[in-house]
Amino acid sequence: MSSDAITSREKDFAKWYQDVIRQGDLAEPAEVVRGCMVIKPHGYAIWEKIQAEMDRRIKATGHKNAYFPLLIPLSFLAKEASHVEGFAMECAVVTHSGLKAVRGPDGKVEIEVKNELEEPYVIRPTSETIIGHYFAKWIQSHRDLPMLINQWCNIMRWEMRTRLFLRTSEFLWQEGHTAHATHEESLEEVHRMLNVYADVAENVMAMPVIRGKKTDSEKFAGAVSSFCIEAMMQDGKALQAGTSHDLGQNFGRAFDVKFQNKAGEIEYVWQTSWGATTRLIGGLIMTHSDDAGLVLPPLLAPIQVVIIPIFKSDEEHAKVVEAGHKLRRECEEAGLSVVLDDRDGMRPGAKHFDWEQKGVPVRIEIGPRDVAAGSCVVKRRDKDPKEKSSLPLTGAATVLKTLMSEMQTSLLERARAFRASRMVQVDTFDQFKQALDPGGKGNFLLAHWDGTPETEKKIKDETKATIRCIPLEGENEPGRCVLTGRPSAQRVIFAQAY
Amino acid sequence: MSSDAITSREKDFAKWYQDVIRQGDLAEPAEVVRGCMVIKPHGYAIWEKIQAEMDRRIKATGHKNAYFPLLIPLSFLAKEASHVEGFAMECAVVTHSGLKAVRGPDGKVEIEVKNELEEPYVIRPTSETIIGHYFAKWIQSHRDLPMLINQWCNIMRWEMRTRLFLRTSEFLWQEGHTAHATHEESLEEVHRMLNVYADVAENVMAMPVIRGKKTDSEKFAGAVSSFCIEAMMQDGKALQAGTSHDLGQNFGRAFDVKFQNKAGEIEYVWQTSWGATTRLIGGLIMTHSDDAGLVLPPLLAPIQVVIIPIFKSDEEHAKVVEAGHKLRRECEEAGLSVVLDDRDGMRPGAKHFDWEQKGVPVRIEIGPRDVAAGSCVVKRRDKDPKEKSSLPLTGAATVLKTLMSEMQTSLLERARAFRASRMVQVDTFDQFKQALDPGGKGNFLLAHWDGTPETEKKIKDETKATIRCIPLEGENEPGRCVLTGRPSAQRVIFAQAY
Repeated sequence: MSSDAITSREKDFAKWYQDVIRQGDLAEPAEVVRGCMVIKPHGYAIWEKIQAEMDRRIKATGHKNAYFPLLIPLSFLAKEASHVEGFAMECAVVTHSGLKAVRGPDGKVEIEVKNELEEPYVIRPTSETIIGHYFAKWIQSHRDLPMLINQWCNIMRWEMRTRLFLRTSEFLWQEGHTAHATHEESLEEVHRMLNVYADVAENVMAMPVIRGKKTDSEKFAGAVSSFCIEAMMQDGKALQAGTSHDLGQNFGRAFDVKFQNKAGEIEYVWQTSWGATTRLIGGLIMTHSDDAGLVLPPLLAPIQVVIIPIFKSDEEHAKVVEAGHKLRRECEEAGLSVVLDDRDGMRPGAKHFDWEQKGVPVRIEIGPRDVAAGSCVVKRRDKDPKEKSSLPLTGAATVLKTLMSEMQTSLLERARAFRASRMVQVDTFDQFKQALDPGGKGNFLLAHWDGTPETEKKIKDETKATIRCIPLEGENEPGRCVLTGRPSAQRVIFAQAY
Repeated sequence: MSSDAITSREKDFAKWYQDVIRQGDLAEPAEVVRGCMVIKPHGYAIWEKIQAEMDRRIKATGHKNAYFPLLIPLSFLAKEASHVEGFAMECAVVTHSGLKAVRGPDGKVEIEVKNELEEPYVIRPTSETIIGHYFAKWIQSHRDLPMLINQWCNIMRWEMRTRLFLRTSEFLWQEGHTAHATHEESLEEVHRMLNVYADVAENVMAMPVIRGKKTDSEKFAGAVSSFCIEAMMQDGKALQAGTSHDLGQNFGRAFDVKFQNKAGEIEYVWQTSWGATTRLIGGLIMTHSDDAGLVLPPLLAPIQVVIIPIFKSDEEHAKVVEAGHKLRRECEEAGLSVVLDDRDGMRPGAKHFDWEQKGVPVRIEIGPRDVAAGSCVVKRRDKDPKEKSSLPLTGAATVLKTLMSEMQTSLLERARAFRASRMVQVDTFDQFKQALDPGGKGNFLLAHWDGTPETEKKIKDETKATIRCIPLEGENEPGRCVLTGRPSAQRVIFAQAY
């Protein structure tokens, strides 16, 4: 197999995922920096589009962006006991503040570490602690509430097993941090932002998600309760795509964030935090892409339309490129992001292949006969590559614009249909084990659970399936735990997860 | 003096600067993280506006954004000898990858550092080295060139004397990194991006700048030559507001970035790098703000217009707020960013004061008499606060829109006139010393220099003035060095600098 080929999903899903990223030129492992990645321009352009959509919604719900230090004093982490226990394992620690360059006798430069710090810092694994410290300075009265802050930044968690986008030691994210006067208000905020995440996932990424609550063993270290959106990948595994936490007064107490309420009494604030990361790009890939490479929903495609000129002679070239530029301009005016691929010395087949792997939603061919007929040939990335249609050049931009929203909807529907085909209701543990991953085709299992961490752990140890969430929507009938037969209020979702 | 008062520029310029930042709610020192800052929402919103204007121009000149790791292996820094010597002093060093939370007998959590790394990492003080490593992987042929990459990220340089925005241990920036086939092309790029910086400085920030070349002793560690834009602050000191470096083949050689040219020969690439940082916000403040606080050019004002209702009774309140909302909607439709300040329990005077200190370009008052007369009262932030004008409510949004571009131009002109009044041509060293900072009113000195680092150093030691740049524009007549009398090709700019 040549190095630019893509392994099929059927054959090796994990390998397919890596191949799609490499061929789509999205990212590569930073082999010189343990567990980190380089996000290449095409991958970063997708992230910028996700950011823009997310940021607009975060601002529209009243939040303001700010920036807090990268480094967190070690002692801050110790203030919230369960928080530090959750994050301690995986922190990068800064212990020195200088280097010394020493030139050896051979003229070579050697570097030595110097200036040991009195108190080490960790690189933020998340910012509840440092932001808690500032909330305590900024909040005095109920008039200062709600305080609604968001931060776009990089995060460091020293992960042992990394995977591009899905789990890397450094990643990019936004983290929202808010403080409220009552638990009712902070819970409202938790759900508001969960809904923002679900909106971006479904209506921008075309990735259907289930909104739910995490079990206690899966919740954020330091939270009262955690909520999440869970998406199904094409191998039937679950991807947690965003989380929103009810922090109660835990960080308020740890960082002494108090306010005077309307009655004049001093209370701790009620806090929330919520985050979504570059892992979303991994979810995007595993929701839509196929054995030919990346497939992008039009709303996130850095290039939506590519025009490929087909010609033999210079004379033909002049003619088709002229028509191509006209179409390009019309597409730009219609608000489409478009490229005319007039690269020299590259055959049309190679160009098709290149843009196909980069996930461009629509490729257009214009040859001399098309120009003569006043039309062009259109290929949709989400359809069989053999499927072509002809489109009159006049008014083509308008048609393409409509096509984009059709594709956007169609990708979401396709992903929904796929998910529906992989949701299985199971009532016994035998059914559970059989339905979890039959022949490598994973399912989401809707099963009753007795609500105990012991049962959750037993099921995980035996099957690798975890409770992805206790869904917020859907049927809510009581039943009996799939493992212990004890009573259960509602079915929860079990799956293997990324 | 009350804690919310602003020291006058005349009295103490450095204190004034801090006061403007505090009262404008732009940032605060992160006293718990040495030399770092918290960028508060109003400050961050200004940064987002600078970013957007800069990013648009960076993309329009063909560059693509990407993201490289925060951590750089120690050995990478050693590869370019003068680079490491320039940056070694000020690096934050990561030596461990984990913590252990230990619960003491009293139940208190203590944290210990663990998992020492085989090779430490530094937090990027700039990314030439790590990006050089990837350029070597990505570039093989002249077809891969030019490679035009930009990164928005955080940077860490352990500074001893820090000042909000101007010099902090952590700051935000963009860093462009490009590779070219010839020195001619890379030099063109260096000047192209210098011009982009000058364009943003003058046409967005309304901050006039001088484009020039750095002397060898002031150039970037590892560069062949460095170019800069230098702005004059209201105390007559210089602020370096952006730099663009010709790296020659220095990093190409250090990181083995080679390509096959059209003739089939293997050559090292020619590289550039260029950066602009959150320090621009400091420049913005010290260019325009006054003794009443922040003054923002309309293009960078997160809020451009604020409407303050004036009323005594509930009935009056209803009437003026209705008129206010109508004006607000019309302003929004005209593309202005506008707030109707209907805060309860706050007097109009306090509101005026608050928005004045935040630098809002236009404040509008609407009282019952104004509503009756179909007009409103307008105060421009860049004029005497006693100067008010009346504006008919009908068509007000259009007038305000025009006013914004007038203010934008007027701020630039005012800053240009100020600078012109503080540029002094000196021909003897006595003149030099007298004109540098007479009575605390600093000047830029246009003086001849013999081109030697010895003379440059002597002048610096004696006067604290450094050569800000060898200007690219302006008169170019030869003369004699202000200190040594030796021949000089052109005047250079001396000033005290931030």
